[in-house]
Amino acid sequence: MPTAAMPAHAAHFATRLKAAVLRTGTPVIVGIDPDIFQLPDAFKPDAPSAAGFAPKVRAFCSEVLAAVADLVPLVKFQSAYFEQLGPAGAGVLAELMIEAKQRGLLVILDVKRGDIGSTSAAYAEAYLNPDSISGMGADAITLAPYMGTDSLQPFVDAAKTYKTGLFVCVKTSNPGSKDLQDQVLKSDEVVYARVANFLRPLMESLEDGSGSSSLGAVVGATFPQAAAELRALLPRSTFLVPGIGAQQGDVASLKNFFDADGHGALVSSSRAIIFPHKFKDKLPWSREAVRKAAHETIDDVRQHVAITTR
Amino acid sequence: MPTAAMPAHAAHFATRLKAAVLRTGTPVIVGIDPDIFQLPDAFKPDAPSAAGFAPKVRAFCSEVLAAVADLVPLVKFQSAYFEQLGPAGAGVLAELMIEAKQRGLLVILDVKRGDIGSTSAAYAEAYLNPDSISGMGADAITLAPYMGTDSLQPFVDAAKTYKTGLFVCVKTSNPGSKDLQDQVLKSDEVVYARVANFLRPLMESLEDGSGSSSLGAVVGATFPQAAAELRALLPRSTFLVPGIGAQQGDVASLKNFFDADGHGALVSSSRAIIFPHKFKDKLPWSREAVRKAAHETIDDVRQHVAITTR
Repeated sequence: MPTAAMPAHAAHFATRLKAAVLRTGTPVIVGIDPDIFQLPDAFKPDAPSAAGFAPKVRAFCSEVLAAVADLVPLVKFQSAYFEQLGPAGAGVLAELMIEAKQRGLLVILDVKRGDIGSTSAAYAEAYLNPDSISGMGADAITLAPYMGTDSLQPFVDAAKTYKTGLFVCVKTSNPGSKDLQDQVLKSDEVVYARVANFLRPLMESLEDGSGSSSLGAVVGATFPQAAAELRALLPRSTFLVPGIGAQQGDVASLKNFFDADGHGALVSSSRAIIFPHKFKDKLPWSREAVRKAAHETIDDVRQHVAITTR
Repeated sequence: MPTAAMPAHAAHFATRLKAAVLRTGTPVIVGIDPDIFQLPDAFKPDAPSAAGFAPKVRAFCSEVLAAVADLVPLVKFQSAYFEQLGPAGAGVLAELMIEAKQRGLLVILDVKRGDIGSTSAAYAEAYLNPDSISGMGADAITLAPYMGTDSLQPFVDAAKTYKTGLFVCVKTSNPGSKDLQDQVLKSDEVVYARVANFLRPLMESLEDGSGSSSLGAVVGATFPQAAAELRALLPRSTFLVPGIGAQQGDVASLKNFFDADGHGALVSSSRAIIFPHKFKDKLPWSREAVRKAAHETIDDVRQHVAITTR
């Protein structure tokens, strides 16, 4: 069990994030999605139990962190793959979040939470307080918006107190996002724009001194037109952009997600980086293969998005 | 740590639920929301740490389960209050879910999850498989619908395989549910009705032999007009109805949520039952006070909803 308390943050999440992107020179982030059915042979457990998988997932993710820590500003842990291992998975996730921070990485915990007030406050305390008794405080988390502004407010309050960040799902990368998010309201707003409009005051309430907000939005790489619209509605938000790599989002359209200075978006790739043995040449998995896949994604994105130091 | 594997279910969740409601004679269920800031004095830890709180939360919830096990068909655990205690909280939750089942209660785990396909599949395996390696398989879970049908399908597939159930948020009890859920589409559908309409084929795909579906909907007690509309759109779904008690939903309007036979809804009360010392006479907390509060809620609901044996 990790015991080292993380220090409170000195600067807003938005400020810390921009510094990390400038330092590494890339907006690419690595999604840590340790699907137990995709683990390389070297990390397969003797017994298919939580106790069998937990140390293997821990070792696999540590290798990934070691491979990418100096290349990218941030890693995003997908909670589902740890929750699948129950209490043992929660323990592994807590340890890995500390390891990632110790390696100098910022950490998003992808939990897509959202609930009524007192319950949202409990989630916010668990995941947005760096000194949380959960031992699982992240630099930022993802949220689901269906329940409305009052369901998000406790997270905004916590992000303000603890100088941590939020990424609210606005237009997600999956084809089924059309079912609700693309519906058009009588007011002529599309649902995803409606959500962006009610996020706007929350975005403004979480700005740092330079006008960047610690309230961001999840916008799928698969929908560049929506991204252009949303860039105008949420000008000071960072977009968390999944969907390149395994999900086939087009890297050439990524410029729609960024602001004029090449900031304002994080491009997340998970499976194509952490499971390179499943893609391309299907070479054996290794730390070097992960590093090579990360370099390829970074180079690919660099051809389309130039980060300035402004 | 719990080790006893739960047996696979012999009957659909919808069938098991109806039998449990008929056996206990009430649709009232108890929400287990062990907010650490509300715990009675007898359950306050020496140290405000996860290690300090975990056994206290465990003992408090065991007392609540003992108090209500013969009175109600089902308990609903709110995951947030356990997640706030990190890995130790996950361990306590796993143990309590087993204890609740051993006491003959059905268990909903209120997690409001939802994500893209492979991630939703990991969540579904964690919480809908009674033999899950997570050790945290529930009889049913709650889901968030914003990401659309394909984000829900892995949960539907798991519910079919494991004969477990789903409750998708459609019209939630909080005032802010108006921000998105009450918006009117160009098609004249309200957003919550749009969600109900895309849930309809999923509802039909999870019917038991008698025409009840294991796909239910969360509909807040605070919105009885919406409930009447949704009752017509999702005729074979059970509504999970939070919002009476502490949230002030009107018990007299509950009939809108039920079908003609007094089935088709579960009325959930959390704080008013488990924290009776915070309400009414503010007497000291005790197992008997919890039992009395549960009896009062059951009697209150019985005045407005009569369950038939059909």
